[in-house]
Amino acid sequence: MSATSVPNTRITRLADRARYDRETAYAILDAGLVAHLAVVVDGAPVVLPFACARAGDQLVLHGSTRAGVLSAIAGGAPVSVAVTLIDGLVVARSAFHSSMNYRSVVVHGSARVVDDAAEKVRLLEALADHLTPGRRAVIRPMNDGELRATQVLTIALETFSAKIRTGGPIDAPEDLDPNLWAGVFPLAAVFGTPQPDATTRPQLAPPELRAAGD
Amino acid sequence: MSATSVPNTRITRLADRARYDRETAYAILDAGLVAHLAVVVDGAPVVLPFACARAGDQLVLHGSTRAGVLSAIAGGAPVSVAVTLIDGLVVARSAFHSSMNYRSVVVHGSARVVDDAAEKVRLLEALADHLTPGRRAVIRPMNDGELRATQVLTIALETFSAKIRTGGPIDAPEDLDPNLWAGVFPLAAVFGTPQPDATTRPQLAPPELRAAGD
Repeated sequence: MSATSVPNTRITRLADRARYDRETAYAILDAGLVAHLAVVVDGAPVVLPFACARAGDQLVLHGSTRAGVLSAIAGGAPVSVAVTLIDGLVVARSAFHSSMNYRSVVVHGSARVVDDAAEKVRLLEALADHLTPGRRAVIRPMNDGELRATQVLTIALETFSAKIRTGGPIDAPEDLDPNLWAGVFPLAAVFGTPQPDATTRPQLAPPELRAAGD
Repeated sequence: MSATSVPNTRITRLADRARYDRETAYAILDAGLVAHLAVVVDGAPVVLPFACARAGDQLVLHGSTRAGVLSAIAGGAPVSVAVTLIDGLVVARSAFHSSMNYRSVVVHGSARVVDDAAEKVRLLEALADHLTPGRRAVIRPMNDGELRATQVLTIALETFSAKIRTGGPIDAPEDLDPNLWAGVFPLAAVFGTPQPDATTRPQLAPPELRAAGD
């Protein structure tokens, strides 16, 4: 992974590539649980992790209305948002050609604060469905106080780029020694055994959640 | 995860807390493979993923000398760097109290370009040792052309903050229904079966690498 991205690619410039990129980018966004969002505060960048989800052509974020950085984002300042999935370590026969397999999307835009109560509920439900699929059917809806305490922001998916590396190492020809192992160590986010809290009745089965990255 | 971090905490203000924070933050940085770095380009933030490692009191990044965004970073512009590890989904009995367990560090500073060849080699070795522990002993050293094509940057670990969430959900008292499962779904980055490339001699054992996050 190196800094060769050109994140400000305006994907509307080439229709074919754009369609390809949008599908690719959306699949990556849909596989990610966390986005890193950057905003400029007092002239300097601040990057923070956020739980995020895609809802149609928007990226949805939420936070406490008391949070400081969120007010800069909510004020409409330009933001940059990255979702990155690490798929493996690419172990080459030299450090120079070693790499990572990954999928990443970088989105540029500015956030819109969602004020409409019905839209806010719909987007928070999209977020819940993304993070804990199926869970919403068995828990109570959010109440008014919770809705008031939660700020929901969306970023339109208009300007973005996807970058993907897959496959094995690409060694220099002079390094191709068959007696030196080279290849890929796949990496994936995997759920461990669910841990019920103290209130949960013993033997109650945990809900089914999809694995992260699925 | 919400935007309640105060990333510009200057940890030198409280010596005791600082020491605690530094140990905590370093452990998180040492468990991460990828950092998200934000820099301001033409007035707008740009966030990108980078492979990263800690070397002493510095964060080490590298990239191609041809990369555009890297020149802004190398020019000494303020940067913000986040390393985030997702440890689990916290499944509460309401969406509002659902959360994630995570460890994150946000570093603020500016990058220094490493020109000294010996220091550059030492820091690239630290990066290699972090990403693929033990690998350096069996592969050839970087050659001069590779060193010239690689830009190495460090960010001093002076201004940073760590944020950690652990433990189960904290439900509202009126939601504590023992017949509704609540708890934590642990998440971890796990290696799959190593995939040798076409050159590797069949039956050659893959190297031992530690799991990400160990």
